[in-house]
Amino acid sequence: MIYLDNAATTALRPEVFDTMIEYMRENYANPSSIYQKAGCAKVAMDVAREKIAKAISADHSNEIFFTGSGSESINWAIKSVVNNTTHGKHIITTKVEHPVVLRTCEFLEKQGFDVTYLPVDEFGMVDAQQVEEAILEGTILVAVMMANNEIGTIMPIAEIGEVIAKVNETRERSERILFFTDAIQAVGHIPVDVNALNVDMLALSGHKFYAPKGVGALYVRRGVKLMPLIHGGGQERGRRGGTENVSGIVGMGYAIDLAMAEMEAEITRQTELRDYLITQILEKIPHSRLNGHPIKRLPGNANITFDFIEGEGMLLMLDFNDIAASSGSACTSGSLDPSHVLLAVGLTHEQAHGSLRLSLGKDTTKQELDKLIEVLPNIVERLRQMSPLWEDYQRNSVT
Amino acid sequence: MIYLDNAATTALRPEVFDTMIEYMRENYANPSSIYQKAGCAKVAMDVAREKIAKAISADHSNEIFFTGSGSESINWAIKSVVNNTTHGKHIITTKVEHPVVLRTCEFLEKQGFDVTYLPVDEFGMVDAQQVEEAILEGTILVAVMMANNEIGTIMPIAEIGEVIAKVNETRERSERILFFTDAIQAVGHIPVDVNALNVDMLALSGHKFYAPKGVGALYVRRGVKLMPLIHGGGQERGRRGGTENVSGIVGMGYAIDLAMAEMEAEITRQTELRDYLITQILEKIPHSRLNGHPIKRLPGNANITFDFIEGEGMLLMLDFNDIAASSGSACTSGSLDPSHVLLAVGLTHEQAHGSLRLSLGKDTTKQELDKLIEVLPNIVERLRQMSPLWEDYQRNSVT
Repeated sequence: MIYLDNAATTALRPEVFDTMIEYMRENYANPSSIYQKAGCAKVAMDVAREKIAKAISADHSNEIFFTGSGSESINWAIKSVVNNTTHGKHIITTKVEHPVVLRTCEFLEKQGFDVTYLPVDEFGMVDAQQVEEAILEGTILVAVMMANNEIGTIMPIAEIGEVIAKVNETRERSERILFFTDAIQAVGHIPVDVNALNVDMLALSGHKFYAPKGVGALYVRRGVKLMPLIHGGGQERGRRGGTENVSGIVGMGYAIDLAMAEMEAEITRQTELRDYLITQILEKIPHSRLNGHPIKRLPGNANITFDFIEGEGMLLMLDFNDIAASSGSACTSGSLDPSHVLLAVGLTHEQAHGSLRLSLGKDTTKQELDKLIEVLPNIVERLRQMSPLWEDYQRNSVT
Repeated sequence: MIYLDNAATTALRPEVFDTMIEYMRENYANPSSIYQKAGCAKVAMDVAREKIAKAISADHSNEIFFTGSGSESINWAIKSVVNNTTHGKHIITTKVEHPVVLRTCEFLEKQGFDVTYLPVDEFGMVDAQQVEEAILEGTILVAVMMANNEIGTIMPIAEIGEVIAKVNETRERSERILFFTDAIQAVGHIPVDVNALNVDMLALSGHKFYAPKGVGALYVRRGVKLMPLIHGGGQERGRRGGTENVSGIVGMGYAIDLAMAEMEAEITRQTELRDYLITQILEKIPHSRLNGHPIKRLPGNANITFDFIEGEGMLLMLDFNDIAASSGSACTSGSLDPSHVLLAVGLTHEQAHGSLRLSLGKDTTKQELDKLIEVLPNIVERLRQMSPLWEDYQRNSVT
């Protein structure tokens, strides 16, 4: 199986799994209990918290709160800000955010909040000036993703952070605009420094960097008030009720350590592989184009549109060849709607439907990509033979 | 280690762990993806969903929604009801609910909801008539736990369900009172039948029945509208965003199967052990008393107050003897406040502080209890020697 869907989820690293076993089999105590065995679980969680804090250059490990998923982290961050704020009801985000951000914002619109969805350029990019111009007196939150999950474009978060910091200098402390970034595709893959980026809150998810599913985290800068999304006992310093997923948290801590150690080398390796893959596909398959920014993109992301065909057919034929990939994001793959991201960068409905996301991972090899490059042209060709759009195009080209 | 804190969390069953390995190591695909491998993960989740549905006699497996914890399930249920309802702002619950329910209700009070906290009798019991009398025109939700996490008392949920059903017969369908039960301590331990109980929503948690931490479920009766707590992609039929904790869900499905198969025998076995333990302690240690109902209590729960001493000292000395137990619930064990449950059943602050919860599990043996019964009288005696309360009492008894 050639797995090119690492943006959807990554395989749990065997060495991470090994670390988790102890906390699944022996150290199973509830970390809130007070006997020694429970203390071990608590200490292990704190170590993981420090590792996550260090990976994103947070000042203090108590700025890290564990959650059950990246989606929970995002919901928590955004809903906490709006529930904490009385000086305004305006939120700024972009048209290419993950559905979690978009659905949360749509929900808040029904609760009386105003949301500005910034458009993006042809590469899926917003710029800091757009954000600056969108800021109103009542703006309380800016939510811009660090890297796009579909097309891999890396947003200018540091510049946006600077713009917001500048506006905040003119405001009372209690009326500051908070800056949240969904860094779920970025953490563990590209450098993320919450201070350099000037972000107040940041969401991350373990299963995107070879940790298990079912565990995520939220960074909240000291001084930013955090309201519970899940009310309950004293866990996570009274901010999130629920017995902690100890083994998942321990696994996430170890996985981020490994990812950080390998990051520099992996960025170089995957970027080379990615560019090779993109060049080969664009060369070998006519009427194909790259989506997202050619350079400012995630090392592992290639997203390509093939005119005149349907992405689903491609995925099924790739699957038949033991190649796993996706069109759009996994989260919306059941849906028949074209990708909102691809529409936002200017593709037509037909083009958006004919797109393929190939996301590389740490185990991806050149041999695997060569296999894909070998079978993909035939797949596209066969699908085009069956496509009425292709037939129309051919007829018009001839006449 | 003698583990008598099964109400806080249970050890993951080795055979459940074995089932999970496949979904941690090989079948790691995102269940929302469309290739075959992802289909396997999706099917495995659906099988687990059916097992959970069957265990609580739900009519349809799509009445089960997976969550990241029992606490999330509770928050989701209660907040969904209040966000969906326009015909009233009154909630009925009890004074002995888990902190997750109480903190959620307190939060809602700040949002303008009225909450009636029903008192309980000396055994920690509410009765259906109390609920009936508390119902107002504006009542939208009744939330009563199935079995108390501290003192083990089993509430008359079926009778309360009947009362609510009767009131609902006089109401428009859109103005029905919804009945939610936190069954986190009950599921997998005593029979739970959502139809016999007449509940609309029910929360459960995997790690209370030998499944892993980080996974729970919410039952929502067909026809009851469920609003997302975590907005996002299409997962859980559009009701909960976030890549699913596939291995945890699979583990929970297998664990509930095993728990159901063993339930009848375990109820008999644990009830006998529990009653032996209680009798021995009350016999051997003066000034001790049982908390909770003598008969209508969880098979594994023994909660005993020892006058004149502090629970924390007991726990530390038990820990020194390799015995894990708790005072109050694990979720509040960091806190210095006495248990709200023990205060509600009429204990004084001092008595509430001197309580010990011993929660048996499927692996608890009579030998282990005998070891406890051997060391506990000395521990209590030594702590009393150091206690000013005991000194006062002794002096007063003499004079």
